[in-house]
Amino acid sequence: MRIFKIFSSAAMLIASVASANAQWEALPKQAPVPSDNPMTAEKVELGKMLYFDPRLSSNGTVSCFTCHNVMEGGDDHRPTSIGVHGQAGGRNAPTVWNAAFLSTQFWDGRAATLEDQAKGPPANPIEMGMANLDATIERIKNIPGYKKYFENAFGGAASVNIDNAAKAIASYERVLITPNSAYDKYVNGDKTALNAKQIRGMETFASTGCIACHSGANFSGPTLPTGTGFFQLFPTYTNNTYVTTYQLMDDVGRMSVTHDQKDKNLWRVPTLRNLVYTAPYMHNGMVKTMDEAVRVMAKTQLAKDLTQDQVSDIVAFLEVLTGEFPEQVMPRLPPTPGDLLE
Amino acid sequence: MRIFKIFSSAAMLIASVASANAQWEALPKQAPVPSDNPMTAEKVELGKMLYFDPRLSSNGTVSCFTCHNVMEGGDDHRPTSIGVHGQAGGRNAPTVWNAAFLSTQFWDGRAATLEDQAKGPPANPIEMGMANLDATIERIKNIPGYKKYFENAFGGAASVNIDNAAKAIASYERVLITPNSAYDKYVNGDKTALNAKQIRGMETFASTGCIACHSGANFSGPTLPTGTGFFQLFPTYTNNTYVTTYQLMDDVGRMSVTHDQKDKNLWRVPTLRNLVYTAPYMHNGMVKTMDEAVRVMAKTQLAKDLTQDQVSDIVAFLEVLTGEFPEQVMPRLPPTPGDLLE
Repeated sequence: MRIFKIFSSAAMLIASVASANAQWEALPKQAPVPSDNPMTAEKVELGKMLYFDPRLSSNGTVSCFTCHNVMEGGDDHRPTSIGVHGQAGGRNAPTVWNAAFLSTQFWDGRAATLEDQAKGPPANPIEMGMANLDATIERIKNIPGYKKYFENAFGGAASVNIDNAAKAIASYERVLITPNSAYDKYVNGDKTALNAKQIRGMETFASTGCIACHSGANFSGPTLPTGTGFFQLFPTYTNNTYVTTYQLMDDVGRMSVTHDQKDKNLWRVPTLRNLVYTAPYMHNGMVKTMDEAVRVMAKTQLAKDLTQDQVSDIVAFLEVLTGEFPEQVMPRLPPTPGDLLE
Repeated sequence: MRIFKIFSSAAMLIASVASANAQWEALPKQAPVPSDNPMTAEKVELGKMLYFDPRLSSNGTVSCFTCHNVMEGGDDHRPTSIGVHGQAGGRNAPTVWNAAFLSTQFWDGRAATLEDQAKGPPANPIEMGMANLDATIERIKNIPGYKKYFENAFGGAASVNIDNAAKAIASYERVLITPNSAYDKYVNGDKTALNAKQIRGMETFASTGCIACHSGANFSGPTLPTGTGFFQLFPTYTNNTYVTTYQLMDDVGRMSVTHDQKDKNLWRVPTLRNLVYTAPYMHNGMVKTMDEAVRVMAKTQLAKDLTQDQVSDIVAFLEVLTGEFPEQVMPRLPPTPGDLLE
């Protein structure tokens, strides 16, 4: 997996270039789909069921939905998530909304695809607590009602396997996109979609340099090949109180995956869409408001102290990145045999 | 609150009468509605949001939905439920489906109405863990997006209060009913809706005496005034191994509410609808299969040892009490301020 760090320490310089050539992109109406997992209604249906099913966790209490609540911002509105047995994880749950546009998954990019990501939490002892992925698929097999949905989606009696489960969940996640924000409408030509303050915020977002990293349709960096992460050093400028106040260097980020010192405090650049729904902010959920998050980022990544007006304008712009959430019908989950959970 | 125990120790005698006059009732298409909380679409909408909102619990992880999963059987498919901080409760989560037809709520009938019931779990330290109901409504007030939904449902700026929250949740629960089971169709005149085995099971259910307690459209006893519980002694016959194997007398039941010795091991008669979805069974979730539940009930309540054929027929009948679950659109929950949860 290649690592893009081209902006990291020279962020200000690059930023000034970026602002001049700011390319504003609307979110596509459809997410990219890998050739080995084409979208079908049957996969999305099964994936939605699995996504909402807490029986994929050891004690039947934690589903994908628990920490990635699609009824709100696709996260869990907590600083860090709570898994089975009340255990707290170490990082803020990234939103599942528009995750399909990211070229790597997890804050540290340790999964290349949504399919790979889906196989992470079930066997994580803090998250869903299953012994391993074999135990996870065994659990699914022990819910007989799932069989026909796997067969409908993948064909064949042997279709209940962990790869297919992950493909189904990923397929469901690829419909979790939020186009048609006021920003998208504006970029697509509706000049009445934003007011003067929001447009000023958009310009300040570019001229300040935020867009150097938060570029592209998803504000999470340039479009890269799947598995190629767009990582940045955070914090870049460490001589400020935010770094200690918000414990920004306590977690080594991508280095926890690669064990390579050069990856210390590198993080995948997150989307800025739907931030209205995803407080608190940062990889550790320590920053509570969008205003403060903007100040923290300007100082730590661009060495800039923004005025309150600049902060207010940028936040007004970030607020119009709130998209339309597709109406979703609740899945019906198959019945539980009485001896499924002890 | 009056207590109906008329059947308890004379169950067999009454049962033989009941079987002769078995009145088979279909589930009404609408649940009863109290005069002080008429149904409106606005209340149902707000109630659905609150029902699915884990922010009503202390650490933001447990909602009504967590233990009463309407995507499945309206329970949590666990023996007993898990609340905040991984704490296990003492009783099996009763299904929310068709709870609107019950004249009292909770296994021990400690709430007269759905409105009263809704005020129980939030301030229960094991369930949702809020300090009290004041803290619960404070939490809701701290999510500004709820205000307009309360005003739409109840009118007035002071409408965000715990009574209205409970009324809204109860209104949502009153749409959670499952008519049109094969049984209902049969009772309504479609004689092809059940096969010979299912009809035989229906007759055995009556002749064995099950219907003495599990009577009425909801198979949870006769229609009684709201707040009037239909309680039964369970186990009635204690000289059998089921009582010890399944620890049936460890929980004193209604006596835990009244502290009256005569209420020891008295329980509200639960519905038998949708049992396919609600394993494991009994107030403590100790009985894993419907077959075994039928054997346990026949022995402990009717002093009868059923043949395997009788058990199989009764279970075939119970299976056709599975109704149609109304299609539900997921609610959209309002955004979280970043300082809502610590």
